[in-house]
Amino acid sequence: MTNLPNNFTLAHELKRDTIPIKSIGGNALSLCYLGLMNNQYFPWLILVPQEENLKEIIDLSSTNQHQLMDEISLVSKHMQAIFSPKKLNIAALGNMVSQLHIHVIARNKNDKAWPNPVWGHAPTEPYSEEEKLKIIDLLK
Amino acid sequence: MTNLPNNFTLAHELKRDTIPIKSIGGNALSLCYLGLMNNQYFPWLILVPQEENLKEIIDLSSTNQHQLMDEISLVSKHMQAIFSPKKLNIAALGNMVSQLHIHVIARNKNDKAWPNPVWGHAPTEPYSEEEKLKIIDLLK
Repeated sequence: MTNLPNNFTLAHELKRDTIPIKSIGGNALSLCYLGLMNNQYFPWLILVPQEENLKEIIDLSSTNQHQLMDEISLVSKHMQAIFSPKKLNIAALGNMVSQLHIHVIARNKNDKAWPNPVWGHAPTEPYSEEEKLKIIDLLK
Repeated sequence: MTNLPNNFTLAHELKRDTIPIKSIGGNALSLCYLGLMNNQYFPWLILVPQEENLKEIIDLSSTNQHQLMDEISLVSKHMQAIFSPKKLNIAALGNMVSQLHIHVIARNKNDKAWPNPVWGHAPTEPYSEEEKLKIIDLLK
């Protein structure tokens, strides 16, 4: 993994919508910023590789593409262990926010969007302070 | 990359909805089945790692997770070169079809779902025979 730190700046929408998570299951990520989407309806993490001017996964070096996969995998394993999802949804879309970011979402049959994707149609409700502390504690 | 060939069987929905692509830009994939979604409205490829009983990316070995990333990257680069998309959408969802499969879709501002995701809400129209031959030729 190379090229850190640099002039990376988190896109304002991602800064606005996520709560920074310092570590997951005791592991800090080396390539990506990790944020919890502030939406109590879905356990939903966002990984943002910390290089400037990234739009697509293929803008990363091959080494960092593998590192990204390792970090997606690490986050996925902890999401699976903590939330026992029916399915993980993992996606790099970016139609709205162009800065490369990867969604890792724990989906369940009783969630508010199942079986549809969460983007565009799912309701949003921020965590209460109590819920926020609880989920951050679960994740760390 | 390990464990091929084995008892892999393509899920019937993926078999029904995709046209097998033997190679992309002259490269055959070693881990994944590659299929073109039979929907003329979006350049849309599906990668399916050819191991049995896969549901999540983390069900693959670490080596094959890297191989999967390499194949996603290869497919992405050719999609970018051929279709000049505004954005690639890359996703492993599986809420409907549980067999692990990865979407790589070339999205554009004038496509029939922009800026929304394609799943669930985008129209579907199979390729005509002529269009099918044309896009398969472009991809190979």
